[in-house]
Amino acid sequence: MEFVIIGGDAAGMSAASRAKRLRPDLKVTVLEKTTDVSYSACGMPYNIADPKREIEDLVVRGANIFREKQNIHLLTGHCAKAIDRINKTVTGMSLKGKDFEFSFDKLLIATGASPIMPDLPGFNLPGVMQLKSLDDGRKIKHFIKSNCVKKSVVIGMGFIALEMVEALRALNIEVDMVKLRPVFLPWMDEMLADVVKGEVETNRVHLYPGHVVERIEKSNKGLTVVCADLKLEADMVLVAIGITPDSRLAANANIELSVSNSISVDKGLKTSDKNIFAAGDCADAYHVVTGQKVWIPLALRANRAGWAVADSVCGRKADLPGVAGTAVFKLFDLEVTRTGLHAEEAKKFGFEPVEVTIKSGSRAHAHPGSSTIYVQMVGDRKSGRLMGVQMVGKEGTAHRINAAAVALHCHMTVEQFSQADMAYAPPFGPVWDPMLTAANQLFKKMRT
Amino acid sequence: MEFVIIGGDAAGMSAASRAKRLRPDLKVTVLEKTTDVSYSACGMPYNIADPKREIEDLVVRGANIFREKQNIHLLTGHCAKAIDRINKTVTGMSLKGKDFEFSFDKLLIATGASPIMPDLPGFNLPGVMQLKSLDDGRKIKHFIKSNCVKKSVVIGMGFIALEMVEALRALNIEVDMVKLRPVFLPWMDEMLADVVKGEVETNRVHLYPGHVVERIEKSNKGLTVVCADLKLEADMVLVAIGITPDSRLAANANIELSVSNSISVDKGLKTSDKNIFAAGDCADAYHVVTGQKVWIPLALRANRAGWAVADSVCGRKADLPGVAGTAVFKLFDLEVTRTGLHAEEAKKFGFEPVEVTIKSGSRAHAHPGSSTIYVQMVGDRKSGRLMGVQMVGKEGTAHRINAAAVALHCHMTVEQFSQADMAYAPPFGPVWDPMLTAANQLFKKMRT
Repeated sequence: MEFVIIGGDAAGMSAASRAKRLRPDLKVTVLEKTTDVSYSACGMPYNIADPKREIEDLVVRGANIFREKQNIHLLTGHCAKAIDRINKTVTGMSLKGKDFEFSFDKLLIATGASPIMPDLPGFNLPGVMQLKSLDDGRKIKHFIKSNCVKKSVVIGMGFIALEMVEALRALNIEVDMVKLRPVFLPWMDEMLADVVKGEVETNRVHLYPGHVVERIEKSNKGLTVVCADLKLEADMVLVAIGITPDSRLAANANIELSVSNSISVDKGLKTSDKNIFAAGDCADAYHVVTGQKVWIPLALRANRAGWAVADSVCGRKADLPGVAGTAVFKLFDLEVTRTGLHAEEAKKFGFEPVEVTIKSGSRAHAHPGSSTIYVQMVGDRKSGRLMGVQMVGKEGTAHRINAAAVALHCHMTVEQFSQADMAYAPPFGPVWDPMLTAANQLFKKMRT
Repeated sequence: MEFVIIGGDAAGMSAASRAKRLRPDLKVTVLEKTTDVSYSACGMPYNIADPKREIEDLVVRGANIFREKQNIHLLTGHCAKAIDRINKTVTGMSLKGKDFEFSFDKLLIATGASPIMPDLPGFNLPGVMQLKSLDDGRKIKHFIKSNCVKKSVVIGMGFIALEMVEALRALNIEVDMVKLRPVFLPWMDEMLADVVKGEVETNRVHLYPGHVVERIEKSNKGLTVVCADLKLEADMVLVAIGITPDSRLAANANIELSVSNSISVDKGLKTSDKNIFAAGDCADAYHVVTGQKVWIPLALRANRAGWAVADSVCGRKADLPGVAGTAVFKLFDLEVTRTGLHAEEAKKFGFEPVEVTIKSGSRAHAHPGSSTIYVQMVGDRKSGRLMGVQMVGKEGTAHRINAAAVALHCHMTVEQFSQADMAYAPPFGPVWDPMLTAANQLFKKMRT
């Protein structure tokens, strides 16, 4: 049986490796358009922050290991152009300009997602960067070094934009951030967002939300980001306004698309064609809270979905329960995290959201070194269910969120969650963990 | 209505405060035999470690606040001696030698637990200490200071013994640890226990497991702990071989006892007498994994049970689901934590335990500063259910355990837990959280 995989990053290589482990006789072909496979994309900001590190540090396993040790037919520099569902072939062209065609019995589309680049003047100028592929990271590192970048503008204020801001500040590069929408972190509770904003500004980053970027111009000193009412000078501009699923191949083959143009898959990662799977940032998922389709591109899901596809291809039952949208990022001294729905999302899905925001110590009463953890929690008044949690704090915030994520998987009520037997010792938190305090208060509010 | 509470620590004062909040008209009387109420007992080792801190730092709320602001009839130095269930009275004697008698409509027994002191020669010598009440902590702090303690022996190797070892080493006091049983941490997976042992020894603590302590003698220099084959010299001896529930009052009133002589309570914290509740370290609980009675005295449960009793007394339904035995302690640079059952316990309760032990990084591949996290996980082959988790590591270990604790509350299978959508960012862990890696490997092992 021939198993062909388009895309050689998290989902693709996870599927390839696991398929070969489960069925060494399987012929597994991976078509990767770039020259890099299996790297930690999420590690790029931290790598860029450190000039002593090579970008190649981020490669988890080199292409040759997949080829030689795992006997995977891995072709880098091979860009798939079309899927023929009737004849079950994938055609395309290699970087060397050679056409190729591969037949498949089972196909996995793991084409990922791409940064959105606005179709505006100057966004193709040298020094205007994006960050998605390892090569993007390579270019940014090289550009910073060879141009002695001192000043930058980041367009966008999402996770990647903020992680990159920390990297740029670590290199002592000045940063201005600009974006269209007036609210800093629109998905976040206002009190928590203000804490994050304070952390960014404390690190001398200037925020310009609510500005329409019209173009980027070449100036004497470098580049100018031009808005209607604002001009920002920079040696380098990073565009990080969001990503979009790479689903064109699937769409052209009349495979069904879903939320945000991601590829629609069932719990077994099958597309509308039973021989074709999709996994990773190009595919959708079921949300464990709503049961509805969502597109939340995250690394763990990509790896897990890759494995599940391999299981399925090798004849094992492999249904994934779905995602809770659990995410975390580090921002200077802060840990920022969330899982599940915020109140507005909950409302949109027909729930009756009730929310609380609390402050708590990161350590016990009177224990030295305690800092503040902010917790926002949402419940549904009708069912009593926990809907989502957001947290911001300096220590012990990142790992706390997973307890709430597990609770969402189990459809726990806020009351049940408030009664969970959590660990306590003075260096690690108060007797009532910040999440339990939030749950207690939310439960109280929900029954009044 | 008269609500009388015996014991003014975590469970007792939580019940008293909440009852007054819910029903300000309720007459609430608390009888506390010592002079201290509402203090963070778990904070004592950390307070003792710092000579600049006063032990009174640990008082969460002073007696006068309960009396004046909350209008609680709080009597310190009042030792209850007997419960008359027929006439519904509690009698006793104050520290000033005065008899007292109080009538109750509802009674809460929150007498806590006491350290076990072996009935052996010399255990009553000056300088032989225990640690349970705030006064114990006060005495230890005073003794260390006024006797310039340089050398100590700790009898026992449990949580409190180990926390105190860290405190003593912080004061640059030499420590020998001795105990009866030959295995260092018998409830812990061997590989994990070795890591903990290594950390203790790295901090120049000498371990003598498997020695029968016969007596403590006064010597020229101070004290000698005498075993059959070993003599250990010390300026101070700490006895921390375990605690036992203070259930004598209940037993004398023919109230039903349970595991380890704790007071038997239902999910609403009611004893075998419907007007009498028990909560805190003196009472038992249901284990969420086995559904059976256990005695696991922990601070969160005590606070929560106190609240539930207040709810019940005030006419609200208040059933607690039970405990998972989630616990954590800090030991020098290590975080040591567990929840649920270990394999031997699981077997005892009729499960068919399968276990794995894995090592994982605390941060992502190639992210600087990563250290090793050890995870041991137990599942039940028959039902597929998660039974318990133990972890040891240097960072991000303590807060990780709560996700597993929540999973135990929900009776999740190992497979379901392995599919939980957990947070990922390179500074906080690998894409597959160490607990997910353990769950993946355990699930694989369980189905073979």
